[in-house]
Amino acid sequence: MAIDLRSDTVTQPSERMRTAAAEAAVGDDVYGEDPTVNDLEAAAADRVGTEDALYVPTGTMGNQIAARVHTDRGQEVVLDREAHIYQWELAGLAQLSGVQPRTVDADDAVPTPEQIHGAYVKESLHRPGTGLVTLENTHNARGGVAVPPEPISAAAEAAHDHDLPVHLDGARLFNACVALDVDPARMVRDVDSVLFCLSKGLGAPVGSMLAGDAKFIAAARRIRKLFGGGMRQAGLVAAPGLLAFENVERLATDHDNAARLAAGLGAIDGLRVPEPDTNIVRVYTDDLADAETFVEACEAAGVRGGVHGPHLTRFCTHLDVDRDDVETAIDRVAGVVASL
Amino acid sequence: MAIDLRSDTVTQPSERMRTAAAEAAVGDDVYGEDPTVNDLEAAAADRVGTEDALYVPTGTMGNQIAARVHTDRGQEVVLDREAHIYQWELAGLAQLSGVQPRTVDADDAVPTPEQIHGAYVKESLHRPGTGLVTLENTHNARGGVAVPPEPISAAAEAAHDHDLPVHLDGARLFNACVALDVDPARMVRDVDSVLFCLSKGLGAPVGSMLAGDAKFIAAARRIRKLFGGGMRQAGLVAAPGLLAFENVERLATDHDNAARLAAGLGAIDGLRVPEPDTNIVRVYTDDLADAETFVEACEAAGVRGGVHGPHLTRFCTHLDVDRDDVETAIDRVAGVVASL
Amino acid sequence: MAIDLRSDTVTQPSERMRTAAAEAAVGDDVYGEDPTVNDLEAAAADRVGTEDALYVPTGTMGNQIAARVHTDRGQEVVLDREAHIYQWELAGLAQLSGVQPRTVDADDAVPTPEQIHGAYVKESLHRPGTGLVTLENTHNARGGVAVPPEPISAAAEAAHDHDLPVHLDGARLFNACVALDVDPARMVRDVDSVLFCLSKGLGAPVGSMLAGDAKFIAAARRIRKLFGGGMRQAGLVAAPGLLAFENVERLATDHDNAARLAAGLGAIDGLRVPEPDTNIVRVYTDDLADAETFVEACEAAGVRGGVHGPHLTRFCTHLDVDRDDVETAIDRVAGVVASL
Amino acid sequence: MAIDLRSDTVTQPSERMRTAAAEAAVGDDVYGEDPTVNDLEAAAADRVGTEDALYVPTGTMGNQIAARVHTDRGQEVVLDREAHIYQWELAGLAQLSGVQPRTVDADDAVPTPEQIHGAYVKESLHRPGTGLVTLENTHNARGGVAVPPEPISAAAEAAHDHDLPVHLDGARLFNACVALDVDPARMVRDVDSVLFCLSKGLGAPVGSMLAGDAKFIAAARRIRKLFGGGMRQAGLVAAPGLLAFENVERLATDHDNAARLAAGLGAIDGLRVPEPDTNIVRVYTDDLADAETFVEACEAAGVRGGVHGPHLTRFCTHLDVDRDDVETAIDRVAGVVASL
Repeated sequence: MAIDLRSDTVTQPSERMRTAAAEAAVGDDVYGEDPTVNDLEAAAADRVGTEDALYVPTGTMGNQIAARVHTDRGQEVVLDREAHIYQWELAGLAQLSGVQPRTVDADDAVPTPEQIHGAYVKESLHRPGTGLVTLENTHNARGGVAVPPEPISAAAEAAHDHDLPVHLDGARLFNACVALDVDPARMVRDVDSVLFCLSKGLGAPVGSMLAGDAKFIAAARRIRKLFGGGMRQAGLVAAPGLLAFENVERLATDHDNAARLAAGLGAIDGLRVPEPDTNIVRVYTDDLADAETFVEACEAAGVRGGVHGPHLTRFCTHLDVDRDDVETAIDRVAGVVASL
Repeated sequence: MAIDLRSDTVTQPSERMRTAAAEAAVGDDVYGEDPTVNDLEAAAADRVGTEDALYVPTGTMGNQIAARVHTDRGQEVVLDREAHIYQWELAGLAQLSGVQPRTVDADDAVPTPEQIHGAYVKESLHRPGTGLVTLENTHNARGGVAVPPEPISAAAEAAHDHDLPVHLDGARLFNACVALDVDPARMVRDVDSVLFCLSKGLGAPVGSMLAGDAKFIAAARRIRKLFGGGMRQAGLVAAPGLLAFENVERLATDHDNAARLAAGLGAIDGLRVPEPDTNIVRVYTDDLADAETFVEACEAAGVRGGVHGPHLTRFCTHLDVDRDDVETAIDRVAGVVASL
Repeated sequence: MAIDLRSDTVTQPSERMRTAAAEAAVGDDVYGEDPTVNDLEAAAADRVGTEDALYVPTGTMGNQIAARVHTDRGQEVVLDREAHIYQWELAGLAQLSGVQPRTVDADDAVPTPEQIHGAYVKESLHRPGTGLVTLENTHNARGGVAVPPEPISAAAEAAHDHDLPVHLDGARLFNACVALDVDPARMVRDVDSVLFCLSKGLGAPVGSMLAGDAKFIAAARRIRKLFGGGMRQAGLVAAPGLLAFENVERLATDHDNAARLAAGLGAIDGLRVPEPDTNIVRVYTDDLADAETFVEACEAAGVRGGVHGPHLTRFCTHLDVDRDDVETAIDRVAGVVASL
Repeated sequence: MAIDLRSDTVTQPSERMRTAAAEAAVGDDVYGEDPTVNDLEAAAADRVGTEDALYVPTGTMGNQIAARVHTDRGQEVVLDREAHIYQWELAGLAQLSGVQPRTVDADDAVPTPEQIHGAYVKESLHRPGTGLVTLENTHNARGGVAVPPEPISAAAEAAHDHDLPVHLDGARLFNACVALDVDPARMVRDVDSVLFCLSKGLGAPVGSMLAGDAKFIAAARRIRKLFGGGMRQAGLVAAPGLLAFENVERLATDHDNAARLAAGLGAIDGLRVPEPDTNIVRVYTDDLADAETFVEACEAAGVRGGVHGPHLTRFCTHLDVDRDDVETAIDRVAGVVASL
């Protein structure tokens, strides 16, 4: 059977999650009457130490709501060139908020204070003015990099020097927190809003949380409606989401598995595999093959990965991959490389 | 205990739906790999006789996706002044698609061919040009009016005379079909896309279906991602959605209950209650009280309704309201009126 | 030679205007250094009694800047269904500001207070909320109707009751003021911004003025830049604009000519011609011919008009049309009608 | 008297231009009836070898019209990070077209084919897809760099490999052509649209030309109306614009003056002055002073410049600056530096 390492989004909900869905107390969440959603929102806010939180169907929606609430049309958003919000959300910044991204090359995954000061544009007759800074942790496209809280806070402080709000795309926030052994509330202490996913590593089938202060969340609730995210008896999927928090600690296992996978693959001649911080393993096939060929060959051999660049393949560990799977995957990929 | 007639969105999922959620085969729907979602999309397309269908978290998202896919920025959308898309979706037409609504007063719930011809604007140097006609059935704000297929087809034909696509907001499509004993595929035969909700009268906890031809759905899938509606293991909520089709026939009971409710309330002195077509009962309190006062008094007496105009209160029957509840509600409201 | 009654936009600048252009003191207006533009802006503000004013290349730009400055994205704009801003500006409200028009049928050219109260939408979770009311005077599409100051003020007061700003599209403001013998400052006393054209009846070749308080104009100046209206040595066209004010009083002649034209045409069997308020004459050809046929025939006979409806033709009097032209035009149209 | 080197936009129209304005044959350009505008559009198209051209009030409007016509909402625009369209047009790409800029660091002023291939994003479910490449020549913010036709054509070819249209922001196109002795038609041979200004170095008071094929210009004409650029008797300012072409050859004098200015200033201790390609001189005050202080001191000494970076001051030569002015300016700045 194929070992699916394409993404940590492919996990199956656990039996307990399924039971929780079946037994969830539900109500109409558009009226704010779904007790399970309310519990989830309270739990999420509690986890990250914010006043309030909002359940959204996807991380993309959460990020785009944040961008919309924090900005006025025509402003700029400073963010890393490799940020998910910029690269993978269908130009939502321009399309949904009418704002212009201003990218910096954040080699260490978050923009430095100097980069933020440098990218800051003061509103003038000719210039749009900056309205928001967004950060990402872990940073997906840079290899699941776990950013420590200090650079997050430093970036936030630099933004706040210019009275700019800061949004953290923490789709995999808990991977970063576990990898670095940092309390989530500390991690997001200095940002103005944070998005984290219950799906991905935490294993819930559907949903993400957008957290911030009460005023922000009230505005976000309205934009969620505009974007079509105001679901009804959402408790049915929020209930598994509540159990997702139980999976936080075991992200360490994903990280161990990723480290083993990287070591194993890195030992294969022809593959270049940087050491991963978390659950994302990047494999460069440089002179061996282009990524499309490599991924197809791996697929045929029973290991699924994703093309992330001309010669870059991504493998993700997750809840449904154990150490045996990792060893098997290494063996299979070794066979693939031998055959290329 | 209060009888909740605010909306048919407040229904609780059945035990079978809960079990279906618990037992659903799921996968990552962003990759198109959720078998339950795929089944649901096939079943939905089959029901309404279209090539394909797409699961969306809400009816609002489905309508706004349709508007976006069918139009170019800067065009006009012809629709009834009381249409949900115009009134209750946060100006999404302008915000998400950059298009301008052109309203007509569709006294019979759908615009007549004459109204469509009259509202049609030919693109010119000075004028935006019409890009879409949208219809609604049942028509919520006009009292749950069930529109027969002939005026739907006539409106579609008028639109097609100008090469305009037609979208049907059928959030309560099956209420119309049951009330008029019309096959859904006939009802939507001449439109280019249709949205219908699995929540509301059909009792599913979450989700709606957008149906149309394969090319439309492919484009819609992409805009769903843009709006943040690309959920992962969505089969968990799609599974109850599949069972929602079993509730189609019993909408007749909701309609009977609404008729009884209207008759009972209409017999109370001081209330004016038009005969309902489907499950939406409109109560005018004219000289008796304004709607806010009336709704509050009803609430205190154990009957929940919604304010829909200065002197207009709306009561909806649904899956969780039986005939006894209706009789009780009539008695309680009678008491309220006596006390005002 | 053809008598051109298509629009009052076709006037030729006078010799004095041409000389003024040639002799204008100019500078870079983007830097605020064009003395002639500055003079014109001061003169305009003085005329309508506002703190400040801004020179814009067209009336459309002025109206769209006002809509943009007064609103937040996603709000509604209340205006007459026949308003130029809604009908003839390429859905700019949706395209440039992301706002949704809410039309009323203002039979007397401006919405009544009741219509404004009725159209007002309070911001809520589900509804966009009203952000602006716009009025038009004279009202072009309703036949150059000159609206007295009282209904303007009443509409403004109704809007202000809801804390809504009011913009007046006064493309032909001075026609209204002259027709009703009202001081422009009184006319716009209660609105928050006003646009009026120096071209059209006042005869300048290019340009319109947007007037309001200093804060509004500062914001408008920035949006003018965004829309591409920040011209350089604009004094060259502002200078004729300054002379346009000298043409205010003679609008009375245009109105007299229009009255004579309407009387003359109305006496022709087969034409229905309402009495005009100002310089716009509307001719209904009802059973005689459709407007396209009629306009073509008039054109062939040396009288140019414009098609404004299936059986509606519009003739405008202006600076370059004298009483003899009017008499000639009547004769020629009589010949046309006789031949149809 | 101050020598104004802030920009080449500050020039005064010549007597001949003023006379041309006074004597221009004009008509209503919205109807396409202004003979002078028509002449100008034909002359412009002829100059750059395109089918058609459109007169627009500003370069910003021309660029933003091009972006709008070439793209669909939600696409990406590839351009240099220092491009005027990205930096100085108030995020118009996002605001007016809903498209997302994707910047590259074009060290040689235009993106290389490799950069374009690298920046190209193929449309997918997750990614917006590239819709347009824009180039700039001369490149303002990079120091008035004159880009030869070969890299322009190479960039265009790379774009066309992906079926992407190419727009050239040639606000100072003729500076590049004169500096490199290249025919304008050759320079723009491989791009799909080009914008060039009649103001700036060519000395016209108002206006720019957008050129391309007939279909493009027809679409552009409509977007010009949307943005509020459809002026009436525009011939009055188009007439001086026609004379602007007579100033093409003398741009060489501006370039000579700029070279002399750069040499003179560069010889002053404390100033770092790269050799200019055209009429834009960049002065780095590095350790001497920040640009604001330097510009203020120069202003006090009778030389006006512009702050373009923390330690970067820009001086522009133009029609109203002769060699004596340049020598005087050098002397005055030398005095300023001595005093700092």
